[in-house]
Amino acid sequence: MPRKFDRLPDQSVITREPFPNSRKIYVQGKIYPFIRVPMREVSLGEGRLPLTEYDTSGPYTDPDVEIDITKGLPPIRLQWILDRGDVEELPNYSSEYTRQRLKDPKTAHIQFPNRRKPLRAKPGHRVTQMHYAKKGIITPEMEFVAIRENKRLELYKEYLARQHKGKDFGAQLPKEITPEFVRQEVARGRAIIPCNINHPELEPMIIGRNFLVKINANIGTSPVTSSIAEEVEKMVWAIRWGADTVMDLSTGKFIHETREWIIRNAPVPIGTVPIYQALEKVGGKPEELTWEIFRDTLIEQCEQGVDYFTIHAGVRLRYIPLTAKRVTGIVSRGGSIIAKWCLAHHKENFLYTHFHEICEILAAYDVAISLGDGLRPGSIADANDEAQFAELETLGELTKIAWEHDVQVMIEGPGHVPMQLIKENMDKQLALCHEAPFYTLGPLVTDIAPGYDHIASAIGAALIGWYGTAMLCYVTPKEHLGLPNKEDVKQGVIAYKIAAHAADLAKGHPGAQIRDDLLSQARFEFRWEDQFNLSLDPETARAYHDETLPSPNAKVAHFCSMCGPKFCSMEITQQIRKMEIEKAMQQKAKEFREKGGEIYVKVQ
Amino acid sequence: MPRKFDRLPDQSVITREPFPNSRKIYVQGKIYPFIRVPMREVSLGEGRLPLTEYDTSGPYTDPDVEIDITKGLPPIRLQWILDRGDVEELPNYSSEYTRQRLKDPKTAHIQFPNRRKPLRAKPGHRVTQMHYAKKGIITPEMEFVAIRENKRLELYKEYLARQHKGKDFGAQLPKEITPEFVRQEVARGRAIIPCNINHPELEPMIIGRNFLVKINANIGTSPVTSSIAEEVEKMVWAIRWGADTVMDLSTGKFIHETREWIIRNAPVPIGTVPIYQALEKVGGKPEELTWEIFRDTLIEQCEQGVDYFTIHAGVRLRYIPLTAKRVTGIVSRGGSIIAKWCLAHHKENFLYTHFHEICEILAAYDVAISLGDGLRPGSIADANDEAQFAELETLGELTKIAWEHDVQVMIEGPGHVPMQLIKENMDKQLALCHEAPFYTLGPLVTDIAPGYDHIASAIGAALIGWYGTAMLCYVTPKEHLGLPNKEDVKQGVIAYKIAAHAADLAKGHPGAQIRDDLLSQARFEFRWEDQFNLSLDPETARAYHDETLPSPNAKVAHFCSMCGPKFCSMEITQQIRKMEIEKAMQQKAKEFREKGGEIYVKVQ
Repeated sequence: MPRKFDRLPDQSVITREPFPNSRKIYVQGKIYPFIRVPMREVSLGEGRLPLTEYDTSGPYTDPDVEIDITKGLPPIRLQWILDRGDVEELPNYSSEYTRQRLKDPKTAHIQFPNRRKPLRAKPGHRVTQMHYAKKGIITPEMEFVAIRENKRLELYKEYLARQHKGKDFGAQLPKEITPEFVRQEVARGRAIIPCNINHPELEPMIIGRNFLVKINANIGTSPVTSSIAEEVEKMVWAIRWGADTVMDLSTGKFIHETREWIIRNAPVPIGTVPIYQALEKVGGKPEELTWEIFRDTLIEQCEQGVDYFTIHAGVRLRYIPLTAKRVTGIVSRGGSIIAKWCLAHHKENFLYTHFHEICEILAAYDVAISLGDGLRPGSIADANDEAQFAELETLGELTKIAWEHDVQVMIEGPGHVPMQLIKENMDKQLALCHEAPFYTLGPLVTDIAPGYDHIASAIGAALIGWYGTAMLCYVTPKEHLGLPNKEDVKQGVIAYKIAAHAADLAKGHPGAQIRDDLLSQARFEFRWEDQFNLSLDPETARAYHDETLPSPNAKVAHFCSMCGPKFCSMEITQQIRKMEIEKAMQQKAKEFREKGGEIYVKVQ
Repeated sequence: MPRKFDRLPDQSVITREPFPNSRKIYVQGKIYPFIRVPMREVSLGEGRLPLTEYDTSGPYTDPDVEIDITKGLPPIRLQWILDRGDVEELPNYSSEYTRQRLKDPKTAHIQFPNRRKPLRAKPGHRVTQMHYAKKGIITPEMEFVAIRENKRLELYKEYLARQHKGKDFGAQLPKEITPEFVRQEVARGRAIIPCNINHPELEPMIIGRNFLVKINANIGTSPVTSSIAEEVEKMVWAIRWGADTVMDLSTGKFIHETREWIIRNAPVPIGTVPIYQALEKVGGKPEELTWEIFRDTLIEQCEQGVDYFTIHAGVRLRYIPLTAKRVTGIVSRGGSIIAKWCLAHHKENFLYTHFHEICEILAAYDVAISLGDGLRPGSIADANDEAQFAELETLGELTKIAWEHDVQVMIEGPGHVPMQLIKENMDKQLALCHEAPFYTLGPLVTDIAPGYDHIASAIGAALIGWYGTAMLCYVTPKEHLGLPNKEDVKQGVIAYKIAAHAADLAKGHPGAQIRDDLLSQARFEFRWEDQFNLSLDPETARAYHDETLPSPNAKVAHFCSMCGPKFCSMEITQQIRKMEIEKAMQQKAKEFREKGGEIYVKVQ
């Protein structure tokens, strides 16, 4: 059987239906009236306030938008970028590799058919959101994310008033996110808006401790399995269920082309780990990597529109021996590649020595850096060790350098950490990395659950999100075992939506409790349809209910198959409330009779 | 189609295979040499220390034990109980209902065929473990649990030495659990060993903050679905995956018979909520409940062998109005039944007013009380409110009364609580209830995840377990939607094994990290089979791996389909280590040559 790595996406398998009783709404900008911020409105029937939900699914869930995946999504940001007057369209791609690849007849059948010419900052310009923010400029991107984060909070004053007080561990959560607040946070480096000028299809979003906790989904082909088609489908699937960003971690033969297809159809930021592709270019031999090959790979990906790069610049030569006695050594792919290069050449990590140059390149496209934690622990035993924290200190040093170049930065974190050691990770990260956003993989709170690591890690993710982590990288049930398929992606995303939302609630993020309250009200009132529709996964909630009680009547019944009609506590509570009201009325009637049964009582 | 509520268990569908590479071992008692404490040993091949795991699965996973579910499990404790000389065999059941039921020809076909005569304390005797403990007696049950909790720790000194320090929030975790420590904890009321004298099939276990965190699985028929057969299968299934106790929450027509089948085949403590059956006896009308009917139900279940009863004695009349403004009112079935009774009669809860009498009955059989939290919050909005904490105070008062009667007690807790409010629950419980063990349902840290509430609640369970909760009641993916089936039971149990184990690790429970370390070592060394076999669910881990790489060769391959051969960080780390060793050897060789190439160097 021929391998099908080069199968192209099929438009018909892309899910486009909106969620049940949901519609896409757009909130207009005030500073920039051309801004239309998409949100999802879940209707709960006449006379009831709908839910307004943060919507990562992009135009796919708007039936009014025509989508052709061979053309890509509408480039909504293109004019915003051009209007700033600081970019130029290049006549050709700056990357040698890209130019060769496009000429190579063997790749002709898998090229994305409608490539745009690349944009780059005009010489001497920096085009990053941090650069504008420091200059005091509120960009359309900043207003967009401000509106997006607020989720029409002005409609829900009653709900805001009764929300539990959070415990914020020092996060500063304003009652309303203003564009100016966004600007300040980006200028200060405490938040990033990953948005490459070559990814105009993007709906801007923000990652920072003082905003809603975000989640990332990893996808990507491996040399052993998958195809371009599957990975595009996974991307659309991941954002449907709530992924705020998607990392394309493809390895194998068609990395360049897979990425192009993904980015052109992605309304969320796309992250990559460029060293993976660089390694493919040298036949998988880390010791043959060179700065020149890596540099060309960066430029190749900058001009495709990648929004953030994981760069393992903190894996310094002298830290590698610190991993020698570990139970699981180095478990970051990127970290192990760099470590092998360093040892083979007995030289300092070239990502570290060339870090200024990397920043210069990235500032010309506004690609954010995600400083990789190449020495993160891969087991409970290795958590919080010297290697890990030595690298973190270097990441703090590199953060300052990136900021000098106005490059947006976040910091990657572990990994595998038992619960009692999680907080130390957050505290050290805040202190050593100057409050740059933290972006952690889980962490898994135990190693004993392969097959269920989405759960083992959602526990750690909820905790570290509460403590202040800005974005949580999901873990799927396949972690440690194989490449996740579409269903695994969904399971991972939903587990992480739960973790991120639990963290928002615990921090006391304004408005975080609205959805919980609306859903619980629906539950108490036996509005089954509303309960399903307000849940993270309406289809599954409905299917589970219908497994035992499929009839339409059961959708208005005052019980489910768990307790049956006589044992439903909610039904009994409603009876109690009715009894109490009746009793109160009887009491009033008695008083009325005792007072002589007159409708108008004489004033004494 | 006829309903099949009365379908009887089928021996052939009961899973009996041991886990792969696992065998049952028995550790002998020292004080009582007739004690044989079962454990699971997972072999990792010659020359490698096996894993010794706490084993809840009972004789089902021991191929040497013959099991006939129409006869029930071997009554291993019967002689221990009789040897104490303080019980008598009754000529007939003391419960009027039981006697009627056994005579009723309509139930003949569903009766468990081999009932034993009931045991009861001789007049004037109390036969509870707390009673013995207070007298300074170490019972066989106490030695049994001491051995069980230790899991042959003496074999793993090397692992104990390198375990991370925990954060115990005041728990007192000895390096070795001695029978005397168990006795002290039971005497002090800080731990319970639920073990009805009429449940001699039981393998004793302990629930307390200073022991391993336990989990409970709820099963039981509902009037809408399921059967005796399915519930017995669910019980065996639940303990296979790790449930430490099982609650039979059956409602519907055949509660008495279902329970008999379950208890006779259960090696773990069985809990119930007797008010459910009492309510069935009065046609589902709470206002028609009486103390007499409830009392007879208690005795009926005491003589069947139920090990602990949830009793909602803390729902006092005056607390009910405190729930009036809640979003979800009263969500405990038992709580709502009692509340309706109280309001209908405008009388104090009869469980509260008869609490001394309840304790007297239970002391004659050693049934533990699980003081129900009838006013627990059913939504994030209602967490930690006045109604909830008012009831908790009463539970503290009732704890003292139970202890006067030497009745073992634990306290039930919520429910739905956002993360920042969880600790207050634990702190208040410890203070108000005099450190009696806490037993919580989750809590769920958000309401928005119906269909995934096992995950939403595992997060809360891990946290509250870390803070000091002794037993975590599982939540399945079907929670709020329908009655869990066998697969849901498994999903719930595994999510809770993760939570409980994460809590043990975080508390720093001695030896908790052994399994993590063994699994991570296996992972690092690409011993795939060992990695599967050490996991909570070897079948699923293996199936996930094999989904993309099914060949036997892949079981020794130094990669999986996630990263493929060139990108496996663990493989690269191994190459690095090899390089380092080679370099070190070259260095030695160089030194050797420089020193003249002599094998024996002259002493200077």
